[in-house]
Amino acid sequence: MSRYGTMFGPDITFHGVEPCTLDEPDTYRDADVVIVGAPFDGGVSHRPGTRFGPQAIRSTDYLAPDASRPSLPLRVDALADLRVVDAGDVEMFAGDIENSITAIENAVYTIASSGAIPLVLGGDHTVALPDITGVARHHGFGRISVVHFDAHADTAHIEFGHLHGHGQPMRRLLESGAVRGDRFLQMGLRGYWPDAETLDWMADRDMRSYEMSEIVARGLDTCVDEAMAIALDDCDGVFLSIDVDVVDPGMAPGTGTPEPGGLTSRQLLDTVRRLAFQLPVVGVDVVEVSPPYDHADITAMLANRIVLECLSGMAARRRGDTWRPDRPLLEGRGRAAR
Amino acid sequence: MSRYGTMFGPDITFHGVEPCTLDEPDTYRDADVVIVGAPFDGGVSHRPGTRFGPQAIRSTDYLAPDASRPSLPLRVDALADLRVVDAGDVEMFAGDIENSITAIENAVYTIASSGAIPLVLGGDHTVALPDITGVARHHGFGRISVVHFDAHADTAHIEFGHLHGHGQPMRRLLESGAVRGDRFLQMGLRGYWPDAETLDWMADRDMRSYEMSEIVARGLDTCVDEAMAIALDDCDGVFLSIDVDVVDPGMAPGTGTPEPGGLTSRQLLDTVRRLAFQLPVVGVDVVEVSPPYDHADITAMLANRIVLECLSGMAARRRGDTWRPDRPLLEGRGRAAR
Amino acid sequence: MSRYGTMFGPDITFHGVEPCTLDEPDTYRDADVVIVGAPFDGGVSHRPGTRFGPQAIRSTDYLAPDASRPSLPLRVDALADLRVVDAGDVEMFAGDIENSITAIENAVYTIASSGAIPLVLGGDHTVALPDITGVARHHGFGRISVVHFDAHADTAHIEFGHLHGHGQPMRRLLESGAVRGDRFLQMGLRGYWPDAETLDWMADRDMRSYEMSEIVARGLDTCVDEAMAIALDDCDGVFLSIDVDVVDPGMAPGTGTPEPGGLTSRQLLDTVRRLAFQLPVVGVDVVEVSPPYDHADITAMLANRIVLECLSGMAARRRGDTWRPDRPLLEGRGRAAR
Amino acid sequence: MSRYGTMFGPDITFHGVEPCTLDEPDTYRDADVVIVGAPFDGGVSHRPGTRFGPQAIRSTDYLAPDASRPSLPLRVDALADLRVVDAGDVEMFAGDIENSITAIENAVYTIASSGAIPLVLGGDHTVALPDITGVARHHGFGRISVVHFDAHADTAHIEFGHLHGHGQPMRRLLESGAVRGDRFLQMGLRGYWPDAETLDWMADRDMRSYEMSEIVARGLDTCVDEAMAIALDDCDGVFLSIDVDVVDPGMAPGTGTPEPGGLTSRQLLDTVRRLAFQLPVVGVDVVEVSPPYDHADITAMLANRIVLECLSGMAARRRGDTWRPDRPLLEGRGRAAR
Amino acid sequence: MSRYGTMFGPDITFHGVEPCTLDEPDTYRDADVVIVGAPFDGGVSHRPGTRFGPQAIRSTDYLAPDASRPSLPLRVDALADLRVVDAGDVEMFAGDIENSITAIENAVYTIASSGAIPLVLGGDHTVALPDITGVARHHGFGRISVVHFDAHADTAHIEFGHLHGHGQPMRRLLESGAVRGDRFLQMGLRGYWPDAETLDWMADRDMRSYEMSEIVARGLDTCVDEAMAIALDDCDGVFLSIDVDVVDPGMAPGTGTPEPGGLTSRQLLDTVRRLAFQLPVVGVDVVEVSPPYDHADITAMLANRIVLECLSGMAARRRGDTWRPDRPLLEGRGRAAR
Amino acid sequence: MSRYGTMFGPDITFHGVEPCTLDEPDTYRDADVVIVGAPFDGGVSHRPGTRFGPQAIRSTDYLAPDASRPSLPLRVDALADLRVVDAGDVEMFAGDIENSITAIENAVYTIASSGAIPLVLGGDHTVALPDITGVARHHGFGRISVVHFDAHADTAHIEFGHLHGHGQPMRRLLESGAVRGDRFLQMGLRGYWPDAETLDWMADRDMRSYEMSEIVARGLDTCVDEAMAIALDDCDGVFLSIDVDVVDPGMAPGTGTPEPGGLTSRQLLDTVRRLAFQLPVVGVDVVEVSPPYDHADITAMLANRIVLECLSGMAARRRGDTWRPDRPLLEGRGRAAR
Repeated sequence: MSRYGTMFGPDITFHGVEPCTLDEPDTYRDADVVIVGAPFDGGVSHRPGTRFGPQAIRSTDYLAPDASRPSLPLRVDALADLRVVDAGDVEMFAGDIENSITAIENAVYTIASSGAIPLVLGGDHTVALPDITGVARHHGFGRISVVHFDAHADTAHIEFGHLHGHGQPMRRLLESGAVRGDRFLQMGLRGYWPDAETLDWMADRDMRSYEMSEIVARGLDTCVDEAMAIALDDCDGVFLSIDVDVVDPGMAPGTGTPEPGGLTSRQLLDTVRRLAFQLPVVGVDVVEVSPPYDHADITAMLANRIVLECLSGMAARRRGDTWRPDRPLLEGRGRAAR
Repeated sequence: MSRYGTMFGPDITFHGVEPCTLDEPDTYRDADVVIVGAPFDGGVSHRPGTRFGPQAIRSTDYLAPDASRPSLPLRVDALADLRVVDAGDVEMFAGDIENSITAIENAVYTIASSGAIPLVLGGDHTVALPDITGVARHHGFGRISVVHFDAHADTAHIEFGHLHGHGQPMRRLLESGAVRGDRFLQMGLRGYWPDAETLDWMADRDMRSYEMSEIVARGLDTCVDEAMAIALDDCDGVFLSIDVDVVDPGMAPGTGTPEPGGLTSRQLLDTVRRLAFQLPVVGVDVVEVSPPYDHADITAMLANRIVLECLSGMAARRRGDTWRPDRPLLEGRGRAAR
Repeated sequence: MSRYGTMFGPDITFHGVEPCTLDEPDTYRDADVVIVGAPFDGGVSHRPGTRFGPQAIRSTDYLAPDASRPSLPLRVDALADLRVVDAGDVEMFAGDIENSITAIENAVYTIASSGAIPLVLGGDHTVALPDITGVARHHGFGRISVVHFDAHADTAHIEFGHLHGHGQPMRRLLESGAVRGDRFLQMGLRGYWPDAETLDWMADRDMRSYEMSEIVARGLDTCVDEAMAIALDDCDGVFLSIDVDVVDPGMAPGTGTPEPGGLTSRQLLDTVRRLAFQLPVVGVDVVEVSPPYDHADITAMLANRIVLECLSGMAARRRGDTWRPDRPLLEGRGRAAR
Repeated sequence: MSRYGTMFGPDITFHGVEPCTLDEPDTYRDADVVIVGAPFDGGVSHRPGTRFGPQAIRSTDYLAPDASRPSLPLRVDALADLRVVDAGDVEMFAGDIENSITAIENAVYTIASSGAIPLVLGGDHTVALPDITGVARHHGFGRISVVHFDAHADTAHIEFGHLHGHGQPMRRLLESGAVRGDRFLQMGLRGYWPDAETLDWMADRDMRSYEMSEIVARGLDTCVDEAMAIALDDCDGVFLSIDVDVVDPGMAPGTGTPEPGGLTSRQLLDTVRRLAFQLPVVGVDVVEVSPPYDHADITAMLANRIVLECLSGMAARRRGDTWRPDRPLLEGRGRAAR
Repeated sequence: MSRYGTMFGPDITFHGVEPCTLDEPDTYRDADVVIVGAPFDGGVSHRPGTRFGPQAIRSTDYLAPDASRPSLPLRVDALADLRVVDAGDVEMFAGDIENSITAIENAVYTIASSGAIPLVLGGDHTVALPDITGVARHHGFGRISVVHFDAHADTAHIEFGHLHGHGQPMRRLLESGAVRGDRFLQMGLRGYWPDAETLDWMADRDMRSYEMSEIVARGLDTCVDEAMAIALDDCDGVFLSIDVDVVDPGMAPGTGTPEPGGLTSRQLLDTVRRLAFQLPVVGVDVVEVSPPYDHADITAMLANRIVLECLSGMAARRRGDTWRPDRPLLEGRGRAAR
Repeated sequence: MSRYGTMFGPDITFHGVEPCTLDEPDTYRDADVVIVGAPFDGGVSHRPGTRFGPQAIRSTDYLAPDASRPSLPLRVDALADLRVVDAGDVEMFAGDIENSITAIENAVYTIASSGAIPLVLGGDHTVALPDITGVARHHGFGRISVVHFDAHADTAHIEFGHLHGHGQPMRRLLESGAVRGDRFLQMGLRGYWPDAETLDWMADRDMRSYEMSEIVARGLDTCVDEAMAIALDDCDGVFLSIDVDVVDPGMAPGTGTPEPGGLTSRQLLDTVRRLAFQLPVVGVDVVEVSPPYDHADITAMLANRIVLECLSGMAARRRGDTWRPDRPLLEGRGRAAR
């Protein structure tokens, strides 16, 4: 198989990083992170459009696609400090959810087993099932924690008569044993879904789900501290699954199932940066960006920055930096640093 | 009169609850809440469009219209736990403000005197006059407090040569005696309106208006505590009048007179939930949603959730629950609850 | 030269204040503030459109253009309490950045040397160079501090082969000596720009740049206190340069280089009001509003309010008021005040 | 009464022509045409927004507002060759249709009786009743023909319980005798309204309505020839009432009741130009432009050009030109003309 | 199976006609036409969104949903003159194209075998396969002609590795024998698809495809005359399959694969009306309306009118009317008709 | 100079054709056509945004970027039958019109002198000056005709104090002698610009400008026949300069100076195809696509197709085909052709 490129447009890469081809291991040997697109929206219960997510996340920026994005607070240039390559999209046909899931799982497993961290650009949240399964196949079922940002628990049993779809991946992951329920952390849930029966099912698996009321009442940082401690307990790695709808729809309208009352963009970016810095991340997906519902590309831009914060946090972690969010931007720079 | 349905579209109900017909008392006998649409935008001083508010608030959702919306934090399903019915819209002609006001006042009074709580979907804020008057006719003039969320005081005297319009209802309510000035609480005011003369008039009636600077400086919860204490003092019930423009236009653009610097969606939803839980609510209106200016339906969705938070708070209050916003979502669920 | 009016539309003024003509000093004699439009977008590195900023900022409102805008929290009517006039736009051709810069610098200097405060409506941030230079020519090079709100440092050396553009004005200002590096305060920076070399250059000039991570970690008020102290030290005046992209793109999408993770609208408005009240402001620009990317005019409206907060803060400062953000709106009004 | 200006924005005039004030006859003495805005949308049966029509029609252009618009095909500069002044808007409150109708009728009558041609910028089509009545009061009831471009006949009897609204003006005009039914020409009707009873009423009044099927089958020019002959028969003048929805919604989306299958923009502009050239026009209205539903201002721009075609046709007619649509643009120009 | 209603929203019917339930034959006994929604967009090769087509086509109108829509040119009220009922949507999951096709085929066959004409609201063009197959199962394979309006031939063999999708239904129909190639008429093709091999395949099956160049060069009416003669030759009925993208994207932007250079809305409406009047229609689908890409609902409105033109043509045909497109609207109406 | 790629985004090529680098002649040796982007919008008098035109024109399509686009009516695959390569964008800084013009002129001349046909993707119409000059430098001043599609004559003398801008290129071309006035054909002019003086200047240079009234009155084909005869008289080649605003803004809203009443998309595509087939084209530009004002990419798609029609016409011309627009799509295909 030759490189597929972007499924619905020109063959571009995330900020212009080098392309790779999953069938040609040499093209991503020694890569730290392999980006791959999952342009699938056949699993959505309402508004589609996330098939255009990978393309939008890759290219939405006002800076040149020069494979360099130095983080101001972390003082790393993840795209240069890490070896990040982009495998293009996996071909996924909306009308065939079963084969699409298989295709992305295989791609993710191929990346993980090469030693690189897979970073998947969705697509709808259906892809979390193959994304996390692919990583778990490499690291061992039950050996990775998941931190899941979302307005929705995504733990439904059956929808539209099917076991698969964007409201169900987390249930399938626990059923298969890919992830332990008591290492499944959810942040940002809110609204009117799911029903009590499903919540009971979640409770019985010892999931830990931070609903927005709790986050507001106890403070986001407190909840994140707690979640990180759980995620690190007896696990070999952490998968971050980030549904852009965890952010308030007022700030991230370009998504399919917008639920008012979410985090601010700032809160999410700060938290993602911190998690990628403080946890041993082994896989990431950023999902549910639906460009047809976006305005002025602000949601695509946010998702682009979520990816960059992940990468920057990883790069700073590898360098062994200290976490100092309050450090002034210019402290210790210039002549002072010489 | 047979059921009118939605004035500008198909005959639908809020999340698929049962319809009722105001002329047929049997259809809403024993109802806890009767929803009614006030599709009137003839009173706006600037951008119209709120005539499509009731339709948008009723139908904007990504879940099926199955008359069930279980609240995650409150653990009630208001549409099931309460008897909520939807009377459709009152026919209101934009070009005739006088008769439109009369029509909605009569509808609200009919509902209130049946023992149900009227919940009015605006429409522009003109309708607060008949909404609150209709409730006061039942509970007694001066016997209900009002908590009014808005960027604007809506206490103008005369605009465009008329006593009625969306900038004036609160003045008319105090003039008529329907509500006591010292039981009229306003939250979220900001900007450059009204003038000093009007503010003096408000002060002379002992209104209590929380401008955003005060809310930021003192904290929203502190201000809400204080407002609740006043609202509960020597009153038989509380009317919640919620203008969606109290939220920052960045998060709620679909409104006619957007004033930057408002609450976040999260703050409003949290506060409304709490008020509906902690106060004896006897009437509600949610107004000023203007779909032509919305993007991706985010403002309509927010208003839909404001209504659900009201209903959920009422349902939890009736069940005698304790207010515990910091309770983990899954605490005491599943096997643990058995 | 007769009055030019708005370059791309009808001849209107900010909220209907009196027009003036820069070539006719009598028309702005004794003015406290002269507003002038800089409809230039030839310097942008990405999305253009700010040429329509002055027109949009002047006219976006839901109130009548009656030259009166009483501030609720500050209890001043800046447009009445100060003498504010509007000189219309300076003709600036996008294709000729050199002459455009000269034209606006001369206009600003003309205003400043008349004794009035120039308030420039951009346009892209290229205009900060002539805006601040024009003011510094009057007050003395090195004698004014700058408080600069922005997502970006705007201190690039050369872009597209040119020394001028919207990413470079602050470097040119320090190079020319118009402003001292250690009196240049930046608030709200974030993202992935500029590179380390440029940051070193900034550090070597002793600039003080508050990146969003620091602002979140230490608190906005703390950072503002610190910045104000620096700005007041051994300076004769302060210039406020406000790029609307300092606000999160979710709340201010109508701009050319949106960077997620910014301040809320509320935070910016509160801070600007406070700075204009507590600092001796000698010049202001509000830039980077790009109407083609706006939705429902919310960004233009925000910029309009930023200007009004500046003016209101100045008016309250002149009257010698005390800073009391927590004062209830109606306290001491009405009969109580008589 | 002093000049009111634009009801919902700055005081501007059509392409920068001189303002006038209806209460001050000297300001429009000897005017050929007086433009007046009717920013009323309280009469619409569906989407509102036409209140912003006058402002949009006046200012939507890419050329400077210099009171000059030379017509390429007609070789006149109507704004210079005729004396055209702009009276601003009549204050019309959407919530009060009766008084709004009276206000615009008086304004139009004032203009017509001054000897000038009133050209009304709507507003919804409700205003055709006072527009045409005001002209008929001056020229005599039954003495003017009407050529009415519209997708809809606007001959309903009662809607929403009222005699007035944007679907009813033409019925009221025939009932009052202001216009004879057999001198009422309609062009462009289509779709599914009104019902047979109303069509019978129209037939009984000998109206002549050209539905789009007939226009396509017989040819637009043939139908226009026929209509012009009727309009000229035993009448003293012709009123042109142009609803922008006569154009296909694909080309003119910014309107309230879009009916697919209309004229092209080109067809309407050509026809309006010809009618204004070949008929003795005594009044014009251009209505139903609803900016909230427009895209990139294309409908407002079209309406702006409809007005200019009217004025240009009138100017060429006064000069005694010959109708030569096939004349090459540059024929007889330059040296050849000297 | 109880009535499903609209898959993605409230249970509404086309213009308010009576609902029916396919599992309950009594609910559509004696129906002339049964409308059914096929909210499927899992087969699209590019932009999705047509799942919201049925809902949009049913409800987009500015008139009340009163089950009456009298056609001006045809003088019938199809919704009253015919018995038209609406079965709601068939549940179709985007991620499962095989089962979705089966579900709609069964629904269509159920309708056709009841003696009613199925009228399917798409959905993407994938559904033409089951739509036409369902009808052919009743009338006999090879016994119905198809007139297919589209920018694209939809005769691809395999796409994304699948036999089914919106670019392939016509090939499958000819392969199965449901329709004869020489009774398959296509109108409006254009652009750069398909390739020569596919065109050869089409030619070998004796399809007759009218590309836009031919339509412009020979005249639309001439081509339609010719196509009708073929369609009527040795066939028992005609299926009309209308892809809204046959209209120019400038007039119908709300579709997934817009190809510039199409018919005008007027041309399509006139042609559809004529075909439904002059041909024995046994089935209809109207597909590819994608609301997320629409503006001001103009494409949905156009599709709504396409359906009404079909129904009106059928109603006039049944009444035995003469085809007189040039008949004046009011000819023979009113007193003249008595 | 290495390949620059797209100035404002990823490095993509038109429909995926091979890239080339202007500094490396081997990369475009033997090319028939070299595409080059001119992302310049510093010359516009009103709405900017055309800097994003090249990127949008290159990538807007619903088909895969596979360097194949077989024309249905012409039966050529221009991207395969011709050698078409894409040089990426020339770096052009909006703020420096002089150097931008020089840069594109040099690029175009480099292409033309290599023996290939330059096809420039604008950018605003300023670039026609260097586009045509670059070609004329190769073929000889006065040796090429120009066919110019536009709503505007673009023959202004000075605007905003400058000789260059998007309203002036055609004047500069005649002044320099690059093109003879009597071989300058304009099609589609309309509206209210330029003034009589400029028209006289045009007439004195014997330009031939077809205004829309003439085109409607005489027929588009007649005018095109006439224009082609002039263009072919005593000239060595023809340059096609196509401003997308020649199409009606209703169908092509994404442009900066929209003038109602233009050609339909169909008319333009048909005419461009024919000209490219029947004339010896030596250069092309397609300009004034402004994505910020577009909707659902319909204008970008139209411009993409304009380019393809040019290329297809050239390819068919080279093959020596006969012009047969009325040929049925499938005539002579399939078995019939073997």
